[in-house]
Amino acid sequence: MASKKIGKATIKFTNPPVIAGTGTIVGPMEGRGPLADDFDVALPDMTCGEKTAERSERKLLEQAAQIALERSSVDKSMVDYYIAGDLLNQIISASFSARQLAIPFLGVYGACSTCAMGTALGGMILDGGFANYVLVACSSHYQAAERQFRYPIELNIKHKTTSQYTVTGAGALVLASSGEGPRVTWATTGKVIDLGVKDQCNLGAAMAPAAADTFLRHVADTGHAPDTYDLILTGDLGSLGSELFKALVKDAGCNLQGNYNDCGLMIFDTKTQRVGAGGSGCACSAVVTFGHVLKQMERGKLKKVLLIATGALLSPLSFQQGESIPGVGHAIVIER
Amino acid sequence: MASKKIGKATIKFTNPPVIAGTGTIVGPMEGRGPLADDFDVALPDMTCGEKTAERSERKLLEQAAQIALERSSVDKSMVDYYIAGDLLNQIISASFSARQLAIPFLGVYGACSTCAMGTALGGMILDGGFANYVLVACSSHYQAAERQFRYPIELNIKHKTTSQYTVTGAGALVLASSGEGPRVTWATTGKVIDLGVKDQCNLGAAMAPAAADTFLRHVADTGHAPDTYDLILTGDLGSLGSELFKALVKDAGCNLQGNYNDCGLMIFDTKTQRVGAGGSGCACSAVVTFGHVLKQMERGKLKKVLLIATGALLSPLSFQQGESIPGVGHAIVIER
Repeated sequence: MASKKIGKATIKFTNPPVIAGTGTIVGPMEGRGPLADDFDVALPDMTCGEKTAERSERKLLEQAAQIALERSSVDKSMVDYYIAGDLLNQIISASFSARQLAIPFLGVYGACSTCAMGTALGGMILDGGFANYVLVACSSHYQAAERQFRYPIELNIKHKTTSQYTVTGAGALVLASSGEGPRVTWATTGKVIDLGVKDQCNLGAAMAPAAADTFLRHVADTGHAPDTYDLILTGDLGSLGSELFKALVKDAGCNLQGNYNDCGLMIFDTKTQRVGAGGSGCACSAVVTFGHVLKQMERGKLKKVLLIATGALLSPLSFQQGESIPGVGHAIVIER
Repeated sequence: MASKKIGKATIKFTNPPVIAGTGTIVGPMEGRGPLADDFDVALPDMTCGEKTAERSERKLLEQAAQIALERSSVDKSMVDYYIAGDLLNQIISASFSARQLAIPFLGVYGACSTCAMGTALGGMILDGGFANYVLVACSSHYQAAERQFRYPIELNIKHKTTSQYTVTGAGALVLASSGEGPRVTWATTGKVIDLGVKDQCNLGAAMAPAAADTFLRHVADTGHAPDTYDLILTGDLGSLGSELFKALVKDAGCNLQGNYNDCGLMIFDTKTQRVGAGGSGCACSAVVTFGHVLKQMERGKLKKVLLIATGALLSPLSFQQGESIPGVGHAIVIER
């Protein structure tokens, strides 16, 4: 029983799901960032021609899903499950896009860790023999997230230096039970960890302990030395959170060297773009991984990558009620 | 490949997950309802000794999970995954309970369909060989839901007759890859369907088409005649929604007779309790199924039950922006 279960919520896929195609779409800020060339579409403005930020986000998600389906040459009628999530209340971007796509829908919420959680779940559904194709997608939108979690952008509130800038964009990928392409080989599901951080302008600090816990459990369960990965990537810890992550991991005897980076630090030029501590949002780790990382694999620059996508599981209400911010980190391994 | 895949998102478990134990807890209204004796705990008030409705809901969820673990004699350290969701923004009840439980966490959002979606996902993880034990749970709280989706209860707004009354409670179940007990044998994942209903005080009408779609797909995929089930149960369509469901299903040539009921109609006495069109909320189908239905199975009164748990995937914001209400229905079969 449970032969694919390696450790505490670490699994090794016996028939690793194939990434048949991806779709990434970003807003104008991200389109001026260092990874711009690796995204399928960079929009000239944030509206997508829609009247509200929420409708724009939904359109981003639908378009990313459409691109992923086209790139993988998989008709949506062949897709068994659509797994999606976003940051908005009641994940309306995901649910409304599921109405459009008409694929049986599994809605997930993992905040900015959604892309890794969805990919792990999709992989289990495929490797378990329950499906041939699964579409995984997630989205975020700066304006929609700001007005939900912080302030309406019209107020032009100055961001703190520890704040992160929500990525406008969406990432989607089609996972297949067979075929050619990079594969998802391992997954480690995260525990929710909360060391008492209450500052919603410092989510990196709130998420770092969960990322470190998942990373350390992953390397212990798999027996993989950190240097077996060409790249170890945290979801969106930003500048402060990634330093904390490295320190926590170092305390446990693991000194991360040149093969570590953070999606939130990669998507923007944090020196010239005014993004505080870096990027965040469901789209951050999704577009960096599904766009940039997979293109680097195509180019032969990367072979084996560990992504630990991180999420801060607060709500505006939990914050107002004085609760601290629980964090989570979900890990997947992609190999070519 | 995909031998357990029977039709479009209908699956047959080859090693059907066993329901090793359940936990159900409800508020005072539900404790005066017709199913009161079948719940593990009925609370004298809605607070659980907490200051806010949101904290009370979280406590309900944690207690239901605790009871399910005790009843199944499974220590939480043995549980591989905790799958949970609720109605609140960013599913804070689920996420905060996951912090308490410290079990690797998969957060899901399916509104009131969560119990069936979580059970289906947990079943796939077990039958796929990725885990030995999965804990599935969900919750809702009348006061927390009212103030988030409608009005603060202090305003004492009169409910419409088509409105449903959110169940205060939580349901949890431990699924195991082996052992004795009732088993989850089939699952059909729902598509998101929206026929344009915009009345948030008539969610039953918004969800009925999705429930009918899932039901008809389920019987077509499985070849099960509706009378092979001792009970066909919709999630929480209420009086109006369940009439619509029956009419839609009849249009497709399937005349449901005495073996059909709706969780929202069962949990309250809709004649004497002032609950509008019936009960709703994630806890509604969860406590009726995990509590009442499984106890009826123990008593030998039911052998094979089809649950189609339904969810209305609106948010307060999507409603304010004039969007219609997408619905979803997820089906599972439980057999003893």
